[in-house]
Amino acid sequence: MSKHGFDSADLRIKPGQPVKLSQFDAQGDGSLDKDKTKALTETLHDELYQLQSRLYAEGKQSLLVVLQAMDAGGKDGTIKSVFRGLNPQGVVVTPFKVPTPAELAHDFLWRVHQRTPAKGQIGIFNRSHYEDVLVVRVNQLVPEKVWRARYDQINAFEQMLSEAGTRIVKFYLHISRDEQKERLVDRLNSPDEQWKFSTSDLPVRERWDDYMQAYEEVLKRCSTESAPWYVIPANRKWQRNYFVTRILIETLKDMNPKYPKPEPGLDKVVIPD
Amino acid sequence: MSKHGFDSADLRIKPGQPVKLSQFDAQGDGSLDKDKTKALTETLHDELYQLQSRLYAEGKQSLLVVLQAMDAGGKDGTIKSVFRGLNPQGVVVTPFKVPTPAELAHDFLWRVHQRTPAKGQIGIFNRSHYEDVLVVRVNQLVPEKVWRARYDQINAFEQMLSEAGTRIVKFYLHISRDEQKERLVDRLNSPDEQWKFSTSDLPVRERWDDYMQAYEEVLKRCSTESAPWYVIPANRKWQRNYFVTRILIETLKDMNPKYPKPEPGLDKVVIPD
Repeated sequence: MSKHGFDSADLRIKPGQPVKLSQFDAQGDGSLDKDKTKALTETLHDELYQLQSRLYAEGKQSLLVVLQAMDAGGKDGTIKSVFRGLNPQGVVVTPFKVPTPAELAHDFLWRVHQRTPAKGQIGIFNRSHYEDVLVVRVNQLVPEKVWRARYDQINAFEQMLSEAGTRIVKFYLHISRDEQKERLVDRLNSPDEQWKFSTSDLPVRERWDDYMQAYEEVLKRCSTESAPWYVIPANRKWQRNYFVTRILIETLKDMNPKYPKPEPGLDKVVIPD
Repeated sequence: MSKHGFDSADLRIKPGQPVKLSQFDAQGDGSLDKDKTKALTETLHDELYQLQSRLYAEGKQSLLVVLQAMDAGGKDGTIKSVFRGLNPQGVVVTPFKVPTPAELAHDFLWRVHQRTPAKGQIGIFNRSHYEDVLVVRVNQLVPEKVWRARYDQINAFEQMLSEAGTRIVKFYLHISRDEQKERLVDRLNSPDEQWKFSTSDLPVRERWDDYMQAYEEVLKRCSTESAPWYVIPANRKWQRNYFVTRILIETLKDMNPKYPKPEPGLDKVVIPD
């Protein structure tokens, strides 16, 4: 983390950069004050709302936010914390689950493409096409030759989206193995959260190292100039929300959406009684 | 308006009830204090959020909110004010615009049906299938025989949705003709809102009485036990937001969503390191 405050470049993976996730500290920045950062994040949410209003009004560009993480990594929590407060008319969240038979009868990008955000919209993918080189790879659900080809296919797809006016940011919410244990134990013991607990998550936890390796290849091969991956230290939720919000604001500022010009001749319009 | 505080029945149209909109006061309840009501509405938003969390977790029922109003009647503003603050993962807003050629090549409910909310979701229609008995009727876009049949078709469709677990509430945001003029003039003069102004809204304003008549028939014929219409006094935005929020909470409470039961045997689960 930069000594001079937040710098998104510290969290962004450079194209082709080899990644060892064990060297990324999921705890985040020890110099950040919790209360001050939370208060700052609140202020930033107002800024995010203003930027979204302009994006929506402009109606020419869209923003696609991809969220990936291990179970209990905070995908749902990030959506709730960071995107609550935006105008729901301009936000579309898509959670991708186990593919249906109809989805499996098509290529892996088919269901994803249908859910990319329209102009003016912010689209959020809760899981994504990256599952097709993560869970699919770890469990060998398709032959290696098939999933190996997908990194380039994903890059080409995202490149096309980007050229068509969709800006893409991808967040890997990085929690430690210990933090995951703590969160799963909390879920087990909280009456309001028990329903989220599924014993099917446990075999995934057992394959932790395989998943890390799969994520490392994703980060190295699919972080591009037009669709970068960010590794977000996510053990502490308030830091995670702060980092994600900062990066979204930076991205939207760079997109620089503008209120559209009014119809010509409005100065002569009179509204009749 | 009831003397004993808010009663949603005062705003709900009874099935078959003849409606004269000129007799509904768009100003609302003169006895309400603005600051107190705004503060109360804030508190109610927390309650709405809690109810949504349960609806989402339960995943067995859905809520469909239909918003209709004249231009500048506050459909977008209601969405921004009332539904901001909900978990965006559980909210899907669909604005219905002029039908595309593909949509016109199907029956009028085809595009609407595709956007009804999934279990656990709140779906919001910004305009809806009711346009097919409003703008379509006023401008005679289809023969009278065709639009006349639609009231029953709509009722049957909504009845089916309701039997399948979708609760429906429909809001007509009622503003006066004077209030519309004031809002359109504001739009014309505000640099951030001019882009929303379209001279194509003016011919619609000229047909105000025809639209009122079309709305009156909608309210009388399509307010049913399972899918009631509410006429919301909407000249004052803070009252509008308060009424809509109260009715949504009442509806969700009546749906009474519950956190699902956890998987059996969770008490024996141990999370491995």
